[in-house]
Amino acid sequence: MDKILRINMGPDGGPQVKEESMGDYAGFGGRGLTSSIIAKEVPPTCHALGADNKLVIAPGLLSGSLAAMSGRISVGCKSPLTGGIKESNAGGQPSQMLGRLGYAAIVLEGKPKDDTLYKIYINKDGVKVEPDNSLKMLGNYDVVDKMKAEYGDKIGCVSIGQAGEMKLAGASVAFSDMEQRPTRHAGRGGSGAVMGSKGVKVIVVDDTDCPARAPKNPDAFKAANKAFVQGLRKHPVTGEGLPTYGTNVLTNVISEAGAYPTNNFQVGTFEGASKISGETQAELEIERGGKGANVHGCHRGCVIRCSGTFYDKNGRFLTKQPEYETVWAHGGNCGIDDIDAIAQIDRLDDDFGLDTIEMGATIAVAMEGGLAEFGDADAAINLVKEVGKGSPLGRILGSGAEVTGKVFGVERVPTVKGQAMPAYDPRAVMGIGVTYATTPMGADHTAGYAIATNILKVGGDVDPLKPEGQVELSRNLQIATAAIDATGMCLFIAFAILDQPDTFQALLDVINGFTGASMTADDVTALGKQILEMERDFNARAGFTPKDDRLPGYMKTEALPPHNITFEVSDDQLDQVFKW
Amino acid sequence: MDKILRINMGPDGGPQVKEESMGDYAGFGGRGLTSSIIAKEVPPTCHALGADNKLVIAPGLLSGSLAAMSGRISVGCKSPLTGGIKESNAGGQPSQMLGRLGYAAIVLEGKPKDDTLYKIYINKDGVKVEPDNSLKMLGNYDVVDKMKAEYGDKIGCVSIGQAGEMKLAGASVAFSDMEQRPTRHAGRGGSGAVMGSKGVKVIVVDDTDCPARAPKNPDAFKAANKAFVQGLRKHPVTGEGLPTYGTNVLTNVISEAGAYPTNNFQVGTFEGASKISGETQAELEIERGGKGANVHGCHRGCVIRCSGTFYDKNGRFLTKQPEYETVWAHGGNCGIDDIDAIAQIDRLDDDFGLDTIEMGATIAVAMEGGLAEFGDADAAINLVKEVGKGSPLGRILGSGAEVTGKVFGVERVPTVKGQAMPAYDPRAVMGIGVTYATTPMGADHTAGYAIATNILKVGGDVDPLKPEGQVELSRNLQIATAAIDATGMCLFIAFAILDQPDTFQALLDVINGFTGASMTADDVTALGKQILEMERDFNARAGFTPKDDRLPGYMKTEALPPHNITFEVSDDQLDQVFKW
Repeated sequence: MDKILRINMGPDGGPQVKEESMGDYAGFGGRGLTSSIIAKEVPPTCHALGADNKLVIAPGLLSGSLAAMSGRISVGCKSPLTGGIKESNAGGQPSQMLGRLGYAAIVLEGKPKDDTLYKIYINKDGVKVEPDNSLKMLGNYDVVDKMKAEYGDKIGCVSIGQAGEMKLAGASVAFSDMEQRPTRHAGRGGSGAVMGSKGVKVIVVDDTDCPARAPKNPDAFKAANKAFVQGLRKHPVTGEGLPTYGTNVLTNVISEAGAYPTNNFQVGTFEGASKISGETQAELEIERGGKGANVHGCHRGCVIRCSGTFYDKNGRFLTKQPEYETVWAHGGNCGIDDIDAIAQIDRLDDDFGLDTIEMGATIAVAMEGGLAEFGDADAAINLVKEVGKGSPLGRILGSGAEVTGKVFGVERVPTVKGQAMPAYDPRAVMGIGVTYATTPMGADHTAGYAIATNILKVGGDVDPLKPEGQVELSRNLQIATAAIDATGMCLFIAFAILDQPDTFQALLDVINGFTGASMTADDVTALGKQILEMERDFNARAGFTPKDDRLPGYMKTEALPPHNITFEVSDDQLDQVFKW
Repeated sequence: MDKILRINMGPDGGPQVKEESMGDYAGFGGRGLTSSIIAKEVPPTCHALGADNKLVIAPGLLSGSLAAMSGRISVGCKSPLTGGIKESNAGGQPSQMLGRLGYAAIVLEGKPKDDTLYKIYINKDGVKVEPDNSLKMLGNYDVVDKMKAEYGDKIGCVSIGQAGEMKLAGASVAFSDMEQRPTRHAGRGGSGAVMGSKGVKVIVVDDTDCPARAPKNPDAFKAANKAFVQGLRKHPVTGEGLPTYGTNVLTNVISEAGAYPTNNFQVGTFEGASKISGETQAELEIERGGKGANVHGCHRGCVIRCSGTFYDKNGRFLTKQPEYETVWAHGGNCGIDDIDAIAQIDRLDDDFGLDTIEMGATIAVAMEGGLAEFGDADAAINLVKEVGKGSPLGRILGSGAEVTGKVFGVERVPTVKGQAMPAYDPRAVMGIGVTYATTPMGADHTAGYAIATNILKVGGDVDPLKPEGQVELSRNLQIATAAIDATGMCLFIAFAILDQPDTFQALLDVINGFTGASMTADDVTALGKQILEMERDFNARAGFTPKDDRLPGYMKTEALPPHNITFEVSDDQLDQVFKW
């Protein structure tokens, strides 16, 4: 995995393909690599949909190896949603496949002269870029089906739906899963719109005849990987909660904690929580013919296996098991307690290529703006369908919560840096509020998942309802996360490595066994800081200031029931997060 | 004129009215007063549509007096379009009337608890604030007609149309003219949306029995005013060009200079210019029963009289004579050379309460985004009608060029700080480009009208096609403009006072004769700087940085025909504008 594949979509004669060595980027992977390339090569004030922006798709340092959990992939660009740097992270198959093919990153550059749509095919023999306007305005499911018909069933696909083609800021990049369905998305920040602006509909990856990447030190690697897997299996979250119920195990937990944003962040507890909880969902899936949650990982090599399959009332596949964030966004946040309706929207989002978090937050803002009643599932489904149609209303919604708030004159818009907040109200979990406010990514729970310590009591115990300790918590998590996102490892390993020192050591041993390096805990911290500093520097050069590291004003004045609490971390405290 | 009228729309018991003395604000008027109040009282990071924002309506220092040209009015707020401080300036009758009633400013504060719509009536006996939901979603013309029926025909109206009620960022505040038509608008920056967020549909002003404000030194004032008027009458721009053809005298001039943004800023010369020029328009108006341009001022006391009336093909009143900026925005910038269609859109904009500059720029962006062909007048009319309907498409367009560009994935969006550029391409008139980039207002020609010196050779001669000298030019004009905007004087006096030292002295004598002060040229400069510094400070506290003082990137790389020139003033030079 020592090559960068650059595809310039801009030249007059059509796309140009170039393979480069890693050069200055050697040693970086995943988010470390996407952020390095964006920070170094993209002018921070450029238009996100213009020729100067780049879309970087990078497996992690360990992707393509046999290391457990190493199949996540990073997508980087200047975000059309936030105007800042973006790394969005997904599962799916392409990460391991690109790793095996030897690509540390694909970089899409330039901008085509016309509206021809392209497909890219990558296998061991090389790279083909071909126009294919028959793909225009297809959903992700149809695109993947067409690619399977064309290239066989060993492929992985990286694709955009209608939303990406329309260059909407809520558009995702889809990664096909082990069943070759486009269910794993780099959702946040509109990376799909950037792919659309490059005129690329789908990248087909075929790693036939490419073996797993060989570790430098096979015995050490194998032993460490075994210890690492054991560590994951013994921790209650990664060994039990997530495999049994999937991420949606959180619905009841967060609602009971009074931190479940309901009806566009008006209330912290959702009456209908139990009807859409992971427990209910798992039961339903088994009842309808599935095997419960823990049949899959989202990628090859996963041992946590928190993914599942959602079957409709007739027992037919409808969509992947909707994630907690999705169930919240399209469920409680819109006052909807109908899991079938939520799953139907999940399918629509995946097909159109939309970030489920941004879309759920957007529908709730639209509801507050009077477009539908909270709780009206049919209306919510119809609103999402508008995006697929490309109607003016659909384009508004597909542009995200901030634009929707502007267009419909709604003041209560739960965004930071233009990106919608995920499924935890920062007033009732102040640690996650610090992360939302300060991460270079815009409101993003994965950037420093303080829920772990605030609510789940993993890695310590910091009272979620008090401002004390939240800055340190978020800072440490943001640093650790940036490093994990560079490895290609799933972020969920954090639960085990935060609580179990031997599992953290096993992770280091896995990395060192694979790379032959001798990385220490301090090196991990240094890497995390380095990545964050690059990202913050990009944003500063794009014009961001501490004023952008703030929650929306109403969260400081409007108390959230049932705790009747506002966000109490001061601006001065927020400004301490990156002072290490 | 020593009172500030504060109306708090927020209390549970309904609106509360309070009259205050000027206090710390003594000596300020117009933009000086609006910007002082906003900078001091509004939290810079608040939501522009929230309870913390304020809408300040302030006549100038001389408004209500018999000083010529003194009937302009300033509207100030935190702008929902730019996120920064806003002063938008209009003619019409309310300025002189409020001056005579003794009000230096009306301040609308707070936010109503429900969606009741209010009207406010102000006369010599006091202030009444009453709910009147019969006004809901009326256009400005109907509102003014209803107010005339209710309060008689001596009133002046300050009102919003449907756009303001919908809180769209392109919404204007309308001021009724001498014929009691809502044709004079504080257009820029969405102040109408802020008025809408306060639940105020119309402010009716009646100055019956209120005499003109008396000068401190009547003889000196009278003599100075006479000299001032003579100076205006002898200058070719204010004495001849503007009175004969109105502001639209510029169409041919700017197109011939290669600086007329055509088809969304693609070209600098418009083939159809002569068909929509001021000369053609004046001819048409006489032919259709009018008396040419110079029948009106836009306010009582105007001696330049650049306003006129537009009659339709049957000789019936359609709208005021569309201003140059409007004719450009809905004309050449959309490839439209049909003056009747342009006038029809002007009427629609005035009725819905929309900024014609923002709307024209927005329609052109929509055309580039594929919603209509450049030059299709019927399509443009229908697009503007969508705003009045409040359809999703209409709400997009009414939110301005930046949102429209986002929603339709258009890269070439000619805005600064989120506000659309007016009728001069900054690549071919670099002085105005410096003003667009750096004024605290967002792209605004009136903030430092470098066209005067770059093109009309008033106040000197600076080559518009070279970067040299533009920073100094824009700086000096921005300072002078801020001061003029504080007086209630029409900005067009600048042509005469820049070229004729005795007319500038006459202006100082008018001010001093009226106020009894002894203001010098240096004091005027100091006032202008003070206002700009307050405004810049507000924006800095709102999170603006030098990165916000930039033109869109494409203007530095895409050459504008016919001069085939890009904007060549460097970022470093732009950053010198406010270093005095």
